Amino acid sequence: MDQRTEIASMGEFGLIEHLTRNIQFQNASTLLGVGDDGAVIDHLGRQTVVSTDLLMEGIHFDLSYTPLKHLGYKSVVVNLSDIYAMNARPTQILMSIAFSNRFSVEALDEFYAGVYAACEAYDVDLIGGDTSSSQKGFVISVTAIGEVAPDKYVKRSTAKPNDLICVSGELGAAFLGLTLLERERKIFEETGAQPDLEGQAHIVGKLLKPEARKDIIEYLSEAEILPTSMIDLSDGLSSDVLHICKQSQTGCVLYEEKFPFHDDMKNFAYKLQLDPTACALSGGEDYELLFTVAQADYEKIASNPAISIIGYMTPESEGKNIITRAGNKHELIAQGWNHAKS
Amino acid sequence: MDQRTEIASMGEFGLIEHLTRNIQFQNASTLLGVGDDGAVIDHLGRQTVVSTDLLMEGIHFDLSYTPLKHLGYKSVVVNLSDIYAMNARPTQILMSIAFSNRFSVEALDEFYAGVYAACEAYDVDLIGGDTSSSQKGFVISVTAIGEVAPDKYVKRSTAKPNDLICVSGELGAAFLGLTLLERERKIFEETGAQPDLEGQAHIVGKLLKPEARKDIIEYLSEAEILPTSMIDLSDGLSSDVLHICKQSQTGCVLYEEKFPFHDDMKNFAYKLQLDPTACALSGGEDYELLFTVAQADYEKIASNPAISIIGYMTPESEGKNIITRAGNKHELIAQGWNHAKS
Repeated sequence: MDQRTEIASMGEFGLIEHLTRNIQFQNASTLLGVGDDGAVIDHLGRQTVVSTDLLMEGIHFDLSYTPLKHLGYKSVVVNLSDIYAMNARPTQILMSIAFSNRFSVEALDEFYAGVYAACEAYDVDLIGGDTSSSQKGFVISVTAIGEVAPDKYVKRSTAKPNDLICVSGELGAAFLGLTLLERERKIFEETGAQPDLEGQAHIVGKLLKPEARKDIIEYLSEAEILPTSMIDLSDGLSSDVLHICKQSQTGCVLYEEKFPFHDDMKNFAYKLQLDPTACALSGGEDYELLFTVAQADYEKIASNPAISIIGYMTPESEGKNIITRAGNKHELIAQGWNHAKS
Repeated sequence: MDQRTEIASMGEFGLIEHLTRNIQFQNASTLLGVGDDGAVIDHLGRQTVVSTDLLMEGIHFDLSYTPLKHLGYKSVVVNLSDIYAMNARPTQILMSIAFSNRFSVEALDEFYAGVYAACEAYDVDLIGGDTSSSQKGFVISVTAIGEVAPDKYVKRSTAKPNDLICVSGELGAAFLGLTLLERERKIFEETGAQPDLEGQAHIVGKLLKPEARKDIIEYLSEAEILPTSMIDLSDGLSSDVLHICKQSQTGCVLYEEKFPFHDDMKNFAYKLQLDPTACALSGGEDYELLFTVAQADYEKIASNPAISIIGYMTPESEGKNIITRAGNKHELIAQGWNHAKS
């Protein structure tokens, strides 16, 4: 332990790669481990998908503008989003929390009201967890478990050149919701002025009470589309597309003009003199699904208004690029949220 | 949220009961949820057991005397102990950590060296997790997954009057290890004197590097003994026996003279003028298995030197009692570690 390497020099993903580089599985039932949205366990004709998130106060959420009920709801939803991103159906969760003595039972009840609301909305069972004291800060750890038909789980590593790149819903709104709430928090701290969230319910809602795209997974199943790769958008579009490219050993081309934006998101971005495209590429926490499909599935995908085709995969040698509205080609670089670096 | 109930007024177990009182399951595959060592999920002929623990620096461990490698090992083992306490075989874990910037990569490598050593020792696969920054303190969240033959999982709620109460290994050593290390830490802080752990490797080892009783579960299987109830000893013998009594709606009689102690544990207790029996009843973190069996299994249990029969279950109306060496009868009260109250 004489050498000291700063964790910041590796970044979160580098650190995970570093810490897990020597794993060898012992159990035949372990089909897929670290490195995807969830792990996969075989159960003789049924497969289990597992995913976990650790959420820290001051890093992942700010209680000064996050209602506890919303926080409980979101804590569950972001985990379910990982299960859906494996093309699986979430069935159970475990919820652990640690809290300091500034929390009352009523405060925890508010938090759990959100947890149970999410369980009800997504038909999942809370089956366990742990509670603890904390010296400082509220800590939330959620593990979600889901099921998937044999070999129907979808990884990040199996996209092929020419596959279409698809995204559900809309991009960048959660990032702008965060920008707005952070701005209002600073104004409140400096002047005592009450937050002005007038007309911004949409972007604030996308940040504080996101939904997981259960509907998209159900549509893909009904339409008999098995994506060639999938990830949920938690770190920003560029970072998450690059995850798929890296793990699939492909390149990609994205078309800026195809990016789906909500009008409220675009208007607020322009008001702040921000580029909506940059918000989509670099902002995080959209919890939309990003996936690739074979060209043969074009008609089925194009007929669903909740899905946008934003580009296609290329051979790795062609690089990772975005074509702007003006027709210029730029290299895509990761600018997603990186909690370990911040 | 006008009312304010202090969490301390409920205690950890009361809080969990309070927060989970309205759970209703949505999935036929959810066989058992909150309230035992692990939850149980059905998989058509195979059953999955899941358990999770959240470990907080300053609450559950003190890095001033806990080597990171030991901490990694123990974090895994305490979770596996929960899976064994369901009579299941652990197969996979998920490990999440949060750490402040005082941690180096080398420090995390030490921690993970312990994690992987435990995975190897117990044949489990690390299949996922999460990493995050922390504003203060090291946070560890582990979820363990195991498998069990259909309906062979053992709950806390199914002990019957006249069943024998059994415990594996020995009691109270981890508590004395903690007492010793806390004493030496204070001496070091006040005087700078190096810790004196001479001759105390056993009790310190039981605290810092506990093992889960895989061997006992394997023995029970080979001997074709299905315990009528089981729990792992994490909160102290009295607290954990009372969990079984409460959930099984029984009483119990324990015999002090039957409690298994290691000589090093007894000697150190006497040196500190502590009663070994009190250490066993109130100390925590033994990670031994406490279980009940039918009287018909007496011969099989008695022939295993790693198992002690320390009492028997009674009808609930007879209360929860301990018979001292002097032949006196005392009511058993919970004095286990209660993190939420401390």
